[in-house]
Amino acid sequence: MISGTTTLIAHLGYPTQSFKAPMIYNPYFEKKGIDAVVVPMGVMAQDYPSFLKTLFRLTNIRGALVTMPHKVTTLALLDEVTPTARIAGACNAILRRSDGSLLGDMFDGAGFVRGVKRSGRSVAAKRALVVGCGGVGSAIAASLAAAEVAMIGLFDANAASATALAKRLSTHYRALEVKTGSNDPAGYDIIVNATPLGMKDGDPLPMDVNRIEPATLVGEVVMKQEYTPFLRQAKDRGCPIQVGTEMLFEQIPAYLEFFGFGTATSDELRAVAKISY
Amino acid sequence: MISGTTTLIAHLGYPTQSFKAPMIYNPYFEKKGIDAVVVPMGVMAQDYPSFLKTLFRLTNIRGALVTMPHKVTTLALLDEVTPTARIAGACNAILRRSDGSLLGDMFDGAGFVRGVKRSGRSVAAKRALVVGCGGVGSAIAASLAAAEVAMIGLFDANAASATALAKRLSTHYRALEVKTGSNDPAGYDIIVNATPLGMKDGDPLPMDVNRIEPATLVGEVVMKQEYTPFLRQAKDRGCPIQVGTEMLFEQIPAYLEFFGFGTATSDELRAVAKISY
Repeated sequence: MISGTTTLIAHLGYPTQSFKAPMIYNPYFEKKGIDAVVVPMGVMAQDYPSFLKTLFRLTNIRGALVTMPHKVTTLALLDEVTPTARIAGACNAILRRSDGSLLGDMFDGAGFVRGVKRSGRSVAAKRALVVGCGGVGSAIAASLAAAEVAMIGLFDANAASATALAKRLSTHYRALEVKTGSNDPAGYDIIVNATPLGMKDGDPLPMDVNRIEPATLVGEVVMKQEYTPFLRQAKDRGCPIQVGTEMLFEQIPAYLEFFGFGTATSDELRAVAKISY
Repeated sequence: MISGTTTLIAHLGYPTQSFKAPMIYNPYFEKKGIDAVVVPMGVMAQDYPSFLKTLFRLTNIRGALVTMPHKVTTLALLDEVTPTARIAGACNAILRRSDGSLLGDMFDGAGFVRGVKRSGRSVAAKRALVVGCGGVGSAIAASLAAAEVAMIGLFDANAASATALAKRLSTHYRALEVKTGSNDPAGYDIIVNATPLGMKDGDPLPMDVNRIEPATLVGEVVMKQEYTPFLRQAKDRGCPIQVGTEMLFEQIPAYLEFFGFGTATSDELRAVAKISY
């Protein structure tokens, strides 16, 4: 029940029609008796910098969820951003701290890493391959590095994306081994498709599945279908897999903690969410 | 259920704690299946002009409810305001029209007039006394004039407030008879207390109740208690009365029509409202 005491979390993006967060957070807030609400706000790119500035003058706002097309722009509009957001090159969360300053963070990658850990696997000291070095791939690589993997392989069809990400990672994580230039999955403990391949019927696979070892955890970011052809083939090889929506639901506890709303398990969130996948 | 397709109505004011509108509109929207939500937004005076400007760049906003301390300021920040708002000297509603322009209106007075009409009484050609010529009194006078009363008496302890309002009324409604300088209720068909007298125990009465004729409709704007001493005494004299919350609930259908959400009866609104009086 929204009232004059309710804390706002803005959900900023454009267009808004496909927003999912309100139907996950708001039923959760209601169930837990948390007096907060996620409010979708459609903002076009040209209006975003000035809107963001005035938005955080509101007396009853705590933060924002940021989505397309503002994730990259946000980075330059805040007082401080975390190393994860800096390496990812994007923010998807803004917190207004008690002194009024704005902190940005990026939880796409945290969602992926939490999913892996929740399956009972360790991430520290492992070897991870990230195929696709755009926004979500960069975020996953940044969170894998923060979770202390020993080595990261990066591949992007646009080689410059991979080398730029490698440089950002190496600058911040000096002990991390980073390789670029190959999407060969052999020899990795964790691999993830962070390309859009799998969104459309007939897309090629993002890598040679026959080279994936059966003990390798195979993750996916595409959520359009729960089991993409890539995941199905990995599963057929006996690999443990992680579906795209896992990243979505696992990142929400990270957001809740960031905003100071306690935490939740992804199962609790899935149980109350008013969306279907 | 808020989603990415939900239309926003901002509720602008400061402080927000005592806001009532979200608990009236939102249950009503939910009951009627209207995909809209009233969102309380706390804005301090110094931030209001810049916030208002960027707020209406949002792609999913339709309008705003405006409350203290912004009702007067709003008048100068819009593309157009209605004569009622201009005479009232304040806006409590903003509509973004399809061309993006902002129209301001004022419904406090409309609420009062709708209440009178709903009780089966006519307003046109009647004589009305408004005691208290601040924001709400000015709004009521403006709406009584729009409803074609024949004569309005205005009184305020600060005589300049009454004469300024009389001038604004006469400029727009040239045929209207306007008198100032007396709070004697004798000879009026409709009288209303638009002063804060009745908010506190021991407040003096706003006028000499012994001079009110039993056929006169006696209205009140104070909502702190349903039956103020003024209303109780008028009732004892046999007068029909209109309580303060009537103005609140009767103005909501006017807002709904203004925003293009159809209409409602005040009884429907009272039935779903999650507030108590």
